[in-house]
Amino acid sequence: MKTVEVSFSPALYGDKLTTGEFIVVIADIFRASTSICAALDHGVKSVIPMEGIEEARLYKQKGFLVAGERDGRILEFADMGNSPSDFFKNDYRGKSIAYTTTNGTKIVHQASDAAEIVIGAFVNLSALAGWLMSRNRNVVIFCAAWKNLFNLEDAVFAGALAEKLLAGGNYQTECDSLKASSDLWKSAREDLHAYLLKSSHRNRLKHLMSDSDYQYAVTSDSVRVVPLLVNGRFENAGF
Amino acid sequence: MKTVEVSFSPALYGDKLTTGEFIVVIADIFRASTSICAALDHGVKSVIPMEGIEEARLYKQKGFLVAGERDGRILEFADMGNSPSDFFKNDYRGKSIAYTTTNGTKIVHQASDAAEIVIGAFVNLSALAGWLMSRNRNVVIFCAAWKNLFNLEDAVFAGALAEKLLAGGNYQTECDSLKASSDLWKSAREDLHAYLLKSSHRNRLKHLMSDSDYQYAVTSDSVRVVPLLVNGRFENAGF
Repeated sequence: MKTVEVSFSPALYGDKLTTGEFIVVIADIFRASTSICAALDHGVKSVIPMEGIEEARLYKQKGFLVAGERDGRILEFADMGNSPSDFFKNDYRGKSIAYTTTNGTKIVHQASDAAEIVIGAFVNLSALAGWLMSRNRNVVIFCAAWKNLFNLEDAVFAGALAEKLLAGGNYQTECDSLKASSDLWKSAREDLHAYLLKSSHRNRLKHLMSDSDYQYAVTSDSVRVVPLLVNGRFENAGF
Repeated sequence: MKTVEVSFSPALYGDKLTTGEFIVVIADIFRASTSICAALDHGVKSVIPMEGIEEARLYKQKGFLVAGERDGRILEFADMGNSPSDFFKNDYRGKSIAYTTTNGTKIVHQASDAAEIVIGAFVNLSALAGWLMSRNRNVVIFCAAWKNLFNLEDAVFAGALAEKLLAGGNYQTECDSLKASSDLWKSAREDLHAYLLKSSHRNRLKHLMSDSDYQYAVTSDSVRVVPLLVNGRFENAGF
């Protein structure tokens, strides 16, 4: 048996229960997770997460595409913003995209004690669950949160993913965060779109996130990609 | 309007949303919260929280009663353990009790930015809600957690308390942790006893917590006390 657990915040990741080798699933539903899945689903070869604007500018100078925004405005030298739909607008097949985020790099760095790091979102839920079960390792679902604060949408996603893993019969849990996530998913699953409208993060992002981006983020299984970190870049693990 | 929010762990308390003056409700359902309510309900004058065994020994030498245990055994110089039922066994009316806890003192210290600190548990749910509403201040429900990890029982209690405050019409919230707590309470309320049996903390405490202590801890409104911290001691605010 393997274990599965949930960490609700970067501030709690250090207290996870798992011992031995494990895979981290990073969940940042209303921001990077869903966008990175969208990018790889549309044929982008790799997404390179980075924190700083200056680092992104260097990548731009080297010929990479850059996705980045601050306070809802696309960076003046960037090719696109950070929303899922920004990756549909043009044909980026085969390209590598430098993706600037405010806390994504910090989270990837924090998760570097994991054997593998993948990206999870509602859009790739079943593909990810299938891939994880094929790997046969302990799983930690790492909610990106917002300024360390518990986020409803990331927790509900954790419950949805955990349900699939636990149903497979090869995982067990002693994690109260996971038990809570499972119950939140039960409350949300009938109408996820309506349920997550009460998320404080959705309200904070209202001016940044269009209704169609929101709809895309809360729709399960629209893509079959598993973004896996390989040498600092997220590439489709090809499940 | 006042705000109400939930902090799921000491590791998250620093990121709370509230600004201005607020009251902290410390929730440690399967340990100190319920026991301190039980003590004051049985006529104990004050409960003095402290971390160290040596500090408790000094209080004992000064003539105080001492409640304390480590690893499930009552400390050799203590008068009683830390379970709620330890305060029913004898007549402690009018006494002050030095209460040793492993993390309670740390939490009280962490919450010292609050205007007032009170203790919340299912046993004093309605009394506490009534007292809080009479104070007309912002409220932060601070879950003690277990080694920083999210606890199901403290979160469910937070949802129960929040429901009462929000129903009063004088509170609002933008806190996802509170929204999640409310949904967990909805899942749990029909049979709280059965629901919290799946809590990992209940399982960890199984050898320390009798079935009757468990039953007492998950039964709402058996006492009418509000333990309020006054000069380092919890005394009944007398609502």
